[in-house]
Order: sequence, then C-alpha cells, then structure tokens
Amino acid sequence: MVGAGQLARMTAQAAVGLGIGFRVLAAAADESAAQVCAGTQTGDYRSLDDLLAFGGRCDVVTFDHEHVPEPHLRALEQDKRAMRARLAELGVACPRSDRAACLDDVTGFADGSGWPVVLKAVSGGYDGKGVWVCGGPEEAAEMLARLHGIDLMVEEHVAFERELAVLVARSPSGQAAVYPVVQTIQQDGICREVLAPAPGLAPATAAAAQRLGLALAAGVGVTGMLAVELFETPGGLLVNELAMRPHNSGHWTIEGARTSQFEQHLRAVLDLPLGSPAAAARHTVMVNILGGDDPRLHSRLAHVMAADPGVKVHLYGKQVRPGRKVGHVTAVGDDIGELRDRAARAASYLSSGTEQAQPQG
Amino acid sequence: MVGAGQLARMTAQAAVGLGIGFRVLAAAADESAAQVCAGTQTGDYRSLDDLLAFGGRCDVVTFDHEHVPEPHLRALEQDKRAMRARLAELGVACPRSDRAACLDDVTGFADGSGWPVVLKAVSGGYDGKGVWVCGGPEEAAEMLARLHGIDLMVEEHVAFERELAVLVARSPSGQAAVYPVVQTIQQDGICREVLAPAPGLAPATAAAAQRLGLALAAGVGVTGMLAVELFETPGGLLVNELAMRPHNSGHWTIEGARTSQFEQHLRAVLDLPLGSPAAAARHTVMVNILGGDDPRLHSRLAHVMAADPGVKVHLYGKQVRPGRKVGHVTAVGDDIGELRDRAARAASYLSSGTEQAQPQG
Repeated sequence: MVGAGQLARMTAQAAVGLGIGFRVLAAAADESAAQVCAGTQTGDYRSLDDLLAFGGRCDVVTFDHEHVPEPHLRALEQDKRAMRARLAELGVACPRSDRAACLDDVTGFADGSGWPVVLKAVSGGYDGKGVWVCGGPEEAAEMLARLHGIDLMVEEHVAFERELAVLVARSPSGQAAVYPVVQTIQQDGICREVLAPAPGLAPATAAAAQRLGLALAAGVGVTGMLAVELFETPGGLLVNELAMRPHNSGHWTIEGARTSQFEQHLRAVLDLPLGSPAAAARHTVMVNILGGDDPRLHSRLAHVMAADPGVKVHLYGKQVRPGRKVGHVTAVGDDIGELRDRAARAASYLSSGTEQAQPQG
Repeated sequence: MVGAGQLARMTAQAAVGLGIGFRVLAAAADESAAQVCAGTQTGDYRSLDDLLAFGGRCDVVTFDHEHVPEPHLRALEQDKRAMRARLAELGVACPRSDRAACLDDVTGFADGSGWPVVLKAVSGGYDGKGVWVCGGPEEAAEMLARLHGIDLMVEEHVAFERELAVLVARSPSGQAAVYPVVQTIQQDGICREVLAPAPGLAPATAAAAQRLGLALAAGVGVTGMLAVELFETPGGLLVNELAMRPHNSGHWTIEGARTSQFEQHLRAVLDLPLGSPAAAARHTVMVNILGGDDPRLHSRLAHVMAADPGVKVHLYGKQVRPGRKVGHVTAVGDDIGELRDRAARAASYLSSGTEQAQPQG
C-alpha cells in the first residue's frame, strides 16, 4: 500500500488475519502504519523511482490516499471536475458545478444557482480543506484573490437534509459487495460521526443509494473500496464526492460488519472472493477523535477505558495537532441514542479531557 | 512479548488499535508474529542475556508460551505437580494425581483410582504432547521404559461428560473480568473446536465455573489472561489445566466478544482498565485449522471465501506440517448447528482440500 496513514495501519491489521504479506511505502518511519507494519519501506510517493522500487517487491499495489501524481488516478479521483464529468456521463445526479477561473465564472454560475455557492479546489482537498462557502459576490472576489494560483471550481450550495455514504467493494473479476447505507455527520468539513445503518432511512432510498454505489463502482471500473458520499435532499440523492479507497465512513465496519472495509479492500485488490458486508449488530456508531490542545492522548486512555469498558478505541499513533484525526471510537449495540452518547463522550474525553454530548448533526 | 507464535501475532493486532508500541522476541525472523510486527527482535528466550536485552527496550514484558526457564514461571505453570499442589491449597477440585517415578508408583495409584490412568510429563507438554493413557500394568511398564528420563506424574482418567474452559483477565491492581464459559472439543489431545457460550450449560454450573476462574486468578496472583480448562463430570467441575496467557479456548473472542482476549491481555499486563468480556453475538464457534498433507494452504483460501462469505479466517503464517495448528476459523450468529457446520467445513477445506462435517465431540 502506497501511503502509511491510518488507512494503511488498519489495512495492515486486516492483512494479518488473512496471512497476506503486507508492505507499506511510508514517507517516514514514524508514520501511522510504519510504526506497526513489519514490511515498511520509506520513500517518496511522488517519486517514480521510489514507487517502482516499492512496486517491484509487491504482487499487487494499492493506495491509502489520492495524492499520487499518476494520470489515470488524477483523471478518476483527484480532479473533481473530471470526476463530475464522468458521473454526468453515467447519469448520476450531482450538485451543479462549473469551472471557476475568474469572478465572472462564479457570479455567472450564481445567477443560475443563487447564493451561497461553494468554491472547491479541483485537486488535493480533504477533510474540509479545499472547500470554501461564499455568501455573495464580494466574498467570492476576496476568496478568488486569496486563492490565486489554485485551480478552482464552483458548485451549488445544496440544502440537504443530511449526508449519507455508501461503501462498495469491487474486484477485478467484477464481483461487488455493498455495505448498509450510513449517515455521516460533518463539522467544519470534517467527518465527526457515522451512524450505521442510517437511522430511519426509507428502505427505497437505501436501496437506491446501494444501486447507485454498485452502478458507480462498475461504471468507473473500481478495484477495491469505493466510498460514495451523498446528499439526501427533498428531491432525491445527489452524489457529493467519491473516494476510491477505504474511507472514514467505513471505519464502523471493523466491529460493526462481518467483513471490515480493510479486509474487503484487500480481498478486492487481490481478486479474492469478497466477504459478507452484513451488519454484525443492530446499530454501530463511530466518532472520530480529533486532536485537542493537550497532546497527552494516551494518558487519557485509561480514564475512557474505566468509564466505558464496552467502547472500542482505535488510536492511529499520530502526533496530536488541533483538529487532526488521531483515532476513532466505536460503540455497538441496540440503542442508538445510548451508543451515540457513549461514543461521543469517549472521543471527546480523548480529544480534550472533557466529556461532551454528541456532535451536533 | 517473549515468543512470536500465533498468540503474539494476534496480540500484535490488538496492540495496533490501542496505539501501544509492541515488540516481540522471536527465535527467527520468519516466525508467525515476526512476519507482521514492526518491533521484532530475534534472540533465544532461553538466554538470560537475550531476555535482558529485549526487556531493556520494553516497559512491560509478557509471554506467549510457558517455556521460559524462569523459576517462578516454572513453579506456577510448567511444573504440573507444583500447579496441582497449589490448586489443592486453594481448595480447587482436580483429578487425583501423584508422582510416577517407577512402575510401583503407577500400579499403586491405579489400585486406588482403577485403570486406565493417565501419565503426564511434569513440564513441557502442550497440544496432546506429553500425555499418555495407560490401560493396564503391562502398558504402563512399556511406557515407563519408553519415557525413561522424562519426569512423570500419574493421574486418574476422568470419565467427564465434556470439557469446558473459562477465561479470566486480571490486572496488577486486582481488577478481574471473566468471559462466558465455553465448551472445548479435543481430538488426540488437540483443541479442535470451541463453542461459546457452552451450549445448554446449567446457569449454576456456568456461575460456579466463573467463580472458580476468578478465585484461581486471585489465588495464584495472575497478571494477564488465565485460561482454566475444566472437566464437567456428574460429580461437578474438576480443574484439568491452567494456562497463564491468551489461550486457544479464547480465540473466539476476536469476533465473538466486545473485547478480545488479546486486547484484554494487553490491558491487564499494562494495568489499564479491563474491557467488557460480554459476548457480541448469541453464538460463536471457533474451529482450528490443522495442517494436512498438502501445504498449499493459501491456494485454498479463495475457495473457502467463495463458499462462505460470512466465515472469518485467521491464518498464522506458519509452515504447514500435518497436525500443526496453522490457523483458525470463526463463525458468529444465531444458529449453533449451522455455525458449527460452516466453521468445520471451512477449516476442513483449508486443512485438506476436503469438506468435512463437524469434529466429533
């Protein structure tokens, strides 16, 4: 796996069970996955030499991020405009969007869509980085000046009811498996909480989201995991983003599904038969642990363990920085309200040493 | 962890989630845990220098086997006679046993207990190695001649109804957690199948087994996991063996309990609060994968995955030798008969390329 962040780390855990030799290409030996993986090679994922040297020791290569500057990946994943064009070809409903090379592009677009609009970096964004909401023409002018040099697109600001995600695994042979549709709750563009399955989702909407995910995976020709982020709107589902890798919206599957997304990704990229994506419990709640002001994350672990022996903590071994994802907490059971409360309290305490109720959603 | 077998391998997986730096002392770089663990040091566990060098780089040291020649460990674990004496002090019911230095010891013992009797090596046995059943005096004489030089004990042959096991975790602070009592099914002295919880076990017997486990853990002063192997007899429970480490009878906890025995062992030895030992599903069945004549285990994995997408396979990365434990399969759900069948078929196919019904129990 190229990249040694938390996705590679959790994939390494899954590889152990399958008896699959697993190597990571890490930028540094102290990266999240490099700390725990016997097969770590350090190198620069932007260097063709390093990639080739790494790939030469592997039978199959996959990725834990979308930052590899390879034209095919760029077309499919990194370039949001190209992705939107491909989705349109596939007949998938997306928010309206257009190029935003200058202020006239933005105001012209807003004449049709209304304000606010969303400016997005065409490539490189994640976790709320690379996304800016503009309330009107003045703000847009300021932002374009500030973002000079960044390739931008403009998108309608969707008045969604909530955000959903559907995860699909697809193998080179074309076998596909789709997970239950989940609700994701973001704050400041960062995923804070995932509810699996999405509470109260109409069965027809869930089925439509799963069909959409399967059609997209086949249409784009995905190998491995595909995460489709969706807006649920009064007019139906809109596709917001795609990610072709294990995804934050699927961390709940480690405890909450028969086959975790990490094992599933390995099965898919190795063209092994896929595992059951069925839920292992009635409800699963995942809450991300964001870095707070106090970096002594590990010293707070004992308190969380004592307060709630049933909650599952995953730490990524990452340096704590405010707002950075440094781990997640999962709670599994029958009462969604109780699970949300427990997972949020544990994550909040690990983040900041204070217990907070659920993230607002 | 001293030792790099499958127990260390699965403990390494659990350490990843907790963000705990985990190192193993391996005899060779290709051992089960050494293949997957970033912090592998090779050395000889029988060498005090190697142990001290390894321990110097760790805050806490624990073990994946009982073969370390350290007097304290020997007294508690390796020497079955010393263990039996300690259990008697604690008032725990065990099979009757005595020393067996010569044939007279054995026949004298059998005068009281009746034939057959069981001869056991006082130290070093596992997986049916070091245990011999003798039908009468002639057989005993032959065996003693054959086993000349091995320190032996003689034990009554218990007419048990079935074998049970109870797993307890205990921390240096004295916190303890006890798992649901399981049934274990052995063949030729090797654990083949574990049913969690033990089907149809009378609640009073289950509670008695759990109390016994907790009392033993406290009485012996265990740190980490303790597995107590029990005989269920018409006259009540008898303690057969103890193991002070994660144990084969607890592999089901990876998917079947809120906290796996491997995570629990880490929490306990680090004196962190223990996790919930509650079952995560109604029934969990674990079947060991034993090496067969055909060593191409991995080439059969795809067939098992295709035949049963819901079964969970754990491979240990060990060289296949006939009868050697090279992995296990877990199935989780509501119908115990169906689960036993699925787990046994998957394990049998991985062992030998043929599907067999359940191990006989």
